[in-house]
Amino acid sequence: MPIILITGGARSGKSTRAEQRALSFPGKPVYIATAEALDEEMRARIARHRARRGNDWIEREVPIELAAALDESDGAGARLVDCLTLWLSNLMHAQRDWRIEGDKLSAALSRQRSPVVLVTNEVGLGIVPDNALAREFRDAAGLLNQVIARVADEVEFVVAGLPIRVK
Amino acid sequence: MPIILITGGARSGKSTRAEQRALSFPGKPVYIATAEALDEEMRARIARHRARRGNDWIEREVPIELAAALDESDGAGARLVDCLTLWLSNLMHAQRDWRIEGDKLSAALSRQRSPVVLVTNEVGLGIVPDNALAREFRDAAGLLNQVIARVADEVEFVVAGLPIRVK
Amino acid sequence: MPIILITGGARSGKSTRAEQRALSFPGKPVYIATAEALDEEMRARIARHRARRGNDWIEREVPIELAAALDESDGAGARLVDCLTLWLSNLMHAQRDWRIEGDKLSAALSRQRSPVVLVTNEVGLGIVPDNALAREFRDAAGLLNQVIARVADEVEFVVAGLPIRVK
Repeated sequence: MPIILITGGARSGKSTRAEQRALSFPGKPVYIATAEALDEEMRARIARHRARRGNDWIEREVPIELAAALDESDGAGARLVDCLTLWLSNLMHAQRDWRIEGDKLSAALSRQRSPVVLVTNEVGLGIVPDNALAREFRDAAGLLNQVIARVADEVEFVVAGLPIRVK
Repeated sequence: MPIILITGGARSGKSTRAEQRALSFPGKPVYIATAEALDEEMRARIARHRARRGNDWIEREVPIELAAALDESDGAGARLVDCLTLWLSNLMHAQRDWRIEGDKLSAALSRQRSPVVLVTNEVGLGIVPDNALAREFRDAAGLLNQVIARVADEVEFVVAGLPIRVK
Repeated sequence: MPIILITGGARSGKSTRAEQRALSFPGKPVYIATAEALDEEMRARIARHRARRGNDWIEREVPIELAAALDESDGAGARLVDCLTLWLSNLMHAQRDWRIEGDKLSAALSRQRSPVVLVTNEVGLGIVPDNALAREFRDAAGLLNQVIARVADEVEFVVAGLPIRVK
């Protein structure tokens, strides 16, 4: 079953597109949120996304252990992971090695039987950040996207709500 | 008659592309600038754009009331709106609700009889800004692009002067 | 022989893609690095790129005089220029006029007999930088990309390691 990676900028319509793709598969879809409701801005964003999705989803919060969550939920409906960029940020805060975790995720994706749709962000098309940590993060985000795109069956780049098929 | 949205990064050749599209329609085109010449950098940019376009255009400065300007100028040549991102910024400075104004623009576009080409910017593909206002602006810019892309007949994403057809 | 421009964000896989393209042509390829190993971060990045490429390349460091380097190395294998954005930065630091140098590069590309693959960056799809120098740089980078794209036979925009053909 397909692995689908949906990438794009902030508010490009990635999540909506990913939800459409996930809902196109049979079975009740599983929404795997990597976001944790740690501050007001994030709580508001999570609430907005949830209101849009409605109640047709099984919901899980998985800030770190994505590979395990995919294995556990495999075999029924599609899984939507939203999003890898936040997951990367969670890994870094938890002092986990994102290269190792990225490879573990990649291996887990390769063994899934039911579909997975993953949302990620493009963060490397602006001016080079002054801040060394921000540079490190955008480098890691770009490399992680490449790692996951490699095992994906389809990759879409979303602009103004519209998908450009990349793979 | 078509509604055409041209998006892309800074200095990607969006405006030149939009001018070509507008000039391809019969009738004298109308250039609707959302920019106001408030500082030296902006005055220089406006002068450069004007020098490139030459005198084949009817020119209007419309910082806020885009829907009305489209209705008033409808029925003859194409209208080129350059650009939506600056319009959004003008709306925010004027304490106008950009969601309501975006819907009004969307409705106005749906009733135009002569063509409209709109230029906008992608501002959400860099690292998340530290500044909360900048985050809010880029979110609004992304959402506005989606709203206008929805009513557009064609959407192009311009990279290095070259259009990628998205819709 | 073709002039190929490869553009994209940070860590999008541009360099790897450009290497594949350069290696697809007969003859020993020439790697023309515009980077100078001025600090630790840059030295590490250069070393990583070199380790990936292996020893199948003739290597040259050309921070400024790209047109001359292309003319001198013409007639055998493909040349890979990595990258134009750093070259632009070098030009600015050396107080050279990047518009004149861009035109010289464009003219040099037009007279090459063996292939040239050039890597560049998209830096204009984030929020407008506060810093006036950063704004100037991203404007120049966007315009330079347009100038080189105009003489290129092929242009690719790389996302998550995957090329989108633009020209």
